[in-house]
Amino acid sequence: MPKKTFAIGIDLGGTSIKTGVVDKKGKILDQISVDSKASKGPPSVIQQMIFTIQHMFGKYKETECMGIGIGSPGVISVNEGLVKNPPNFANWDEVSLSKAIRKATDLPIFVENDANVAAIAEANFGAGAEYKHFLYVIWGTGVGGGIIVDKKIYRGPYGGAGEIGHVSIDYNGPVCNCGNHGCIEAYIGQRYLSQRTKEILKSQPKDMPPSKIIDFVDGNLDKIDPYIISMAAEQDDRIAREILEEAGKLLGYALVSVLNVIDVRVVVIGGGISAAPHYVYKAMESALRSRILKPNKAAVRILRAQLGNSAGMIGAASLVM
Amino acid sequence: MPKKTFAIGIDLGGTSIKTGVVDKKGKILDQISVDSKASKGPPSVIQQMIFTIQHMFGKYKETECMGIGIGSPGVISVNEGLVKNPPNFANWDEVSLSKAIRKATDLPIFVENDANVAAIAEANFGAGAEYKHFLYVIWGTGVGGGIIVDKKIYRGPYGGAGEIGHVSIDYNGPVCNCGNHGCIEAYIGQRYLSQRTKEILKSQPKDMPPSKIIDFVDGNLDKIDPYIISMAAEQDDRIAREILEEAGKLLGYALVSVLNVIDVRVVVIGGGISAAPHYVYKAMESALRSRILKPNKAAVRILRAQLGNSAGMIGAASLVM
Repeated sequence: MPKKTFAIGIDLGGTSIKTGVVDKKGKILDQISVDSKASKGPPSVIQQMIFTIQHMFGKYKETECMGIGIGSPGVISVNEGLVKNPPNFANWDEVSLSKAIRKATDLPIFVENDANVAAIAEANFGAGAEYKHFLYVIWGTGVGGGIIVDKKIYRGPYGGAGEIGHVSIDYNGPVCNCGNHGCIEAYIGQRYLSQRTKEILKSQPKDMPPSKIIDFVDGNLDKIDPYIISMAAEQDDRIAREILEEAGKLLGYALVSVLNVIDVRVVVIGGGISAAPHYVYKAMESALRSRILKPNKAAVRILRAQLGNSAGMIGAASLVM
Repeated sequence: MPKKTFAIGIDLGGTSIKTGVVDKKGKILDQISVDSKASKGPPSVIQQMIFTIQHMFGKYKETECMGIGIGSPGVISVNEGLVKNPPNFANWDEVSLSKAIRKATDLPIFVENDANVAAIAEANFGAGAEYKHFLYVIWGTGVGGGIIVDKKIYRGPYGGAGEIGHVSIDYNGPVCNCGNHGCIEAYIGQRYLSQRTKEILKSQPKDMPPSKIIDFVDGNLDKIDPYIISMAAEQDDRIAREILEEAGKLLGYALVSVLNVIDVRVVVIGGGISAAPHYVYKAMESALRSRILKPNKAAVRILRAQLGNSAGMIGAASLVM
């Protein structure tokens, strides 16, 4: 029997499907990315996933593959490999990805929520490798989370634990996409953050030196996104810095409530906005430390995720290992 | 060998120590309550606990006792039976209650946090008996919680999970005893609720009919406590009703954040203020349902605890069973 040397990890997203061949040390040996046909419905997306798998089996022996792991948005029933209502995917009610992919291979298939998958990657091979317990926060388009306890995902009784983006920091705050008020996602999620930046820039007095953000988007404020804000912040733009520091502080406040409830002490920040400058982390950590329950003040720490965009593939492959 | 028929459950509090003989069905066969010498330091308190145990062994055979369970305030290390810094107990740094009580008996001894103990009681014999998973909320002097998953306490990695009183509903809100801002305890804990009632009563226009609360305390507003407010509310006092409904609504908002993180759907409310009228529960449940994440809207429910003041003794005894 051939030795099993790798697993395939698929990071299923509304924009792209990234499929990687990952060895036992979490190293990506090969990868392919295709634009996701999320708007075309489940059969097209499944066809794409199978294509990327077969592409890899043209280069790596299927007999040496341990199995296939998939990280997906939406609500996941881990046992049945079921994906429910992933946002940004059209006509997708409830689909068993395990069943669908099994038509193409006899290998074991595992499906898990995308935030949880990234958390597992950081737990095994990234910023969380030294810690048994931590909260992984994905800070990007939205804000999500995965709770790692004893090196494993804590899913809660129904598999949905860790929705930290919908922890409210102000019950009279702005309305979130989810219907709640003052969710941390409604302050620091990509869309909200860009919107607020636009408003702040518009309200600046004309005689102030213009923000670098305006240069970066050629004056078109609709083009603002957190990456642009980060770039401006790195060039010491005052407004960009203030916006990101404020966002970090607010995330720190949300984390106080979360950690007081789940009693975890280490937080790993991943997702697109986690590349923000160091002082954003400082603002976050000082907000958290100043308000968390006393016995935990000294022990809390916030770390930057280490695996970047590859966390999805690596974590998905880890599901198999 | 004699048949083991009962356990002893001790509810250790800053005001009283309640010790009960509890059978396997959660029925209290006998009980004794003594005023707690909390201000005299650990040796006095331990002496009192041993006294109540010996009192019971004068009436019930020690050989038929399964063991002794203790519910205590403070941070508990369950494995060592250690109680750290219980609020309202003088000179109490870190004391192993297991070790101290073991001098008086060879029976097995179990120590657990008081909110967790009450949660266990409701899980086994009370409002939570039908549910595998729920959040127990103790609403009284402070606000605390115990998370029940698969009929067992979920302690989190360090044993401190469930501090829901220190979930903030407004990061700019009033300062809580713990140092954080806008904790739900800082709105609806006994002291804060009484204080706010006092302020509201003082600010009422003179030509309004006076609130029944003022009658109940003979005009001395310093005597207001949640029990008085509840009594007035039951007699349809408008101000009392508004205050309690508002408190219920705010607790509902705090629960949104908590349930979004831990993915539990049933909440059991215990503690002194849980005796509040039905409409307080309605306010709580409608606040929770209106704002929780969509997939859980239909399933959430809030129940009144059933074991009242006995939950501590029954739950403590359950630790043994």
